[in-house]
Amino acid sequence: MDKLLLDAGSGGLASHRLVADLFLKYFDNPVLAAMNDAAFLEGDPQGRPMAMSTDSYTVDPPEFPGGNIGSLAIHGTVNDVAMLGAEPRWLTCAFILEEGLDMAFLERVVQAMGKAAADAGVIIAAGDTKVVPRGAVDKIFINTTGVGPILVDPAPMGHRAAPGDAVLLSGSVGDHGLTVLGRREGLSFEADVQSDSAALNRVVKDLVTELPEVHVLRDPTRGGLATTLNEIAGQSSTVVRVEEKDIPISPAVVAGCSFLGLDPLYLANEGKLLCFLPEEHCDKALEIMRRHEVGQGAVRIGSVIDPKEATYGRAGQVVLTTNLGGSRLLSMLEGEQLPRIC
Amino acid sequence: MDKLLLDAGSGGLASHRLVADLFLKYFDNPVLAAMNDAAFLEGDPQGRPMAMSTDSYTVDPPEFPGGNIGSLAIHGTVNDVAMLGAEPRWLTCAFILEEGLDMAFLERVVQAMGKAAADAGVIIAAGDTKVVPRGAVDKIFINTTGVGPILVDPAPMGHRAAPGDAVLLSGSVGDHGLTVLGRREGLSFEADVQSDSAALNRVVKDLVTELPEVHVLRDPTRGGLATTLNEIAGQSSTVVRVEEKDIPISPAVVAGCSFLGLDPLYLANEGKLLCFLPEEHCDKALEIMRRHEVGQGAVRIGSVIDPKEATYGRAGQVVLTTNLGGSRLLSMLEGEQLPRIC
Repeated sequence: MDKLLLDAGSGGLASHRLVADLFLKYFDNPVLAAMNDAAFLEGDPQGRPMAMSTDSYTVDPPEFPGGNIGSLAIHGTVNDVAMLGAEPRWLTCAFILEEGLDMAFLERVVQAMGKAAADAGVIIAAGDTKVVPRGAVDKIFINTTGVGPILVDPAPMGHRAAPGDAVLLSGSVGDHGLTVLGRREGLSFEADVQSDSAALNRVVKDLVTELPEVHVLRDPTRGGLATTLNEIAGQSSTVVRVEEKDIPISPAVVAGCSFLGLDPLYLANEGKLLCFLPEEHCDKALEIMRRHEVGQGAVRIGSVIDPKEATYGRAGQVVLTTNLGGSRLLSMLEGEQLPRIC
Repeated sequence: MDKLLLDAGSGGLASHRLVADLFLKYFDNPVLAAMNDAAFLEGDPQGRPMAMSTDSYTVDPPEFPGGNIGSLAIHGTVNDVAMLGAEPRWLTCAFILEEGLDMAFLERVVQAMGKAAADAGVIIAAGDTKVVPRGAVDKIFINTTGVGPILVDPAPMGHRAAPGDAVLLSGSVGDHGLTVLGRREGLSFEADVQSDSAALNRVVKDLVTELPEVHVLRDPTRGGLATTLNEIAGQSSTVVRVEEKDIPISPAVVAGCSFLGLDPLYLANEGKLLCFLPEEHCDKALEIMRRHEVGQGAVRIGSVIDPKEATYGRAGQVVLTTNLGGSRLLSMLEGEQLPRIC
């Protein structure tokens, strides 16, 4: 069978065949293989709190340089769970598939998911497959939901950003957003950029275990760096100031954004993290991040400022020191820059 | 705004407004309101194992007698988690919405979810919203994923069905499947039937705490009673024999199925459970089930038989004693009876 048939989502015999032939082949683990209504997860003898996060992936096109919707669905949710200072351990994975879907494509997606999960050290514990008639969905949507114990108390959270914190970024921004847009539009710069989609859980584990002083971890996905910084400034009622000259952006992304009239600070990233922590731990944190391939480009990009002492900007605002030395507010994303970017 | 705009899924300002105005309004709880990348869940001081389950809901039409896609998405996942003898505690909820969706309809769905979650005693801990361009999805798909501690050791599972077990069913079958189909096709019998969509976690909690001897709990959703019985027979390598005369089916469902040429034993249910346990606990289990409104119609429908002693059927098969006294194999659902039934 080279095209997916509607009955593969029936819950009956054809569904069981799809699960056995495809999902168990690439996701094989004893938890999933038990095939009950719910997965049985080991308890945590330490009774630690858990982080839980969900995301649906609708990226268009579903295959792009640097990954596909399957690897993205693993990385995105692994990262969201990790951002609470947690160790993502179990993921669920739910497919909504369009009748007639090319089976070779589906296998590539599932294979990429299996590899991404194994690389990140997480188990796909439970799944679901729905097949809907042609036209009811555009090819494939995937939901992943992740759970894992939180490694540090208190957990890093947006409201904990505090005056005096350094703001660190693990690498260049804009790569994922520009890559997907380029692929969608068939633009010629696509050869120079690829998605940064990657799992950040190992760098997070090192950060929070070696530096429990970390205040905030957040990955700047939809809405980009600018939107994520605004969320943190808002949650902590601080002013976040970042230096434009220190924000790493690859030459290809600069060129592509210039050509398309896009601002890379609003483009989605899928393998980068922001880390806020007291200034004195800045060098150590950068050293930890750079140990990992995904953190090679880690740099400090700014500081958290007490609103009462800010020369520009109010509580909850993000201020950019421009390359020319001026200051301007960096607002949250307004409108929709790129639908279906993740 | 009476139609959903694309920018509500941007991750930016419009997304934040949708979350604040709609989701937090109906799902309000401190875990969700913290608005971090992942939800912070309390640990379990007893370190008990957890059950985790995921399901995507694509039901067409999304509103039907007895519920809508929102209440169904809560009940379905609450029930799947419960079937492992667990107490569902936290749910995530991810929406994929079509640009231009009627906002009043979306509010009805979200309101129904909030009510269903509160009634079942579960918290919606984290969420995600994607808005895709018109045509990329049919109105609304919802994923819910649930987690909660398992209350009994060993947990009820399909492979634990054992010769000598009684097979109990909590009420009539076929109501959900026939209702949705009737609504979709605009058939006139629809006034007489409504979906049985309901949360089963409270009856499960009573069952497993008062009768830890329960071997299997399973809700017969997609594929219906026949398919679920086959799964259990297969996992336990037993023969399951059920009595056609004892399987409760409402007169309206019998009539509707007869008219449409459908077999109610293959129609989806969304508020029924199967319970397998040693014969001597049968009466007590029925008494517990009947205490609850969702278990009013609980009855015994059959038994588990050692394949070596079975007069008909092999290990992994389900045998139906027909109303005429004969025996026939009841197979798993082949093909697709009703796409988008849940």
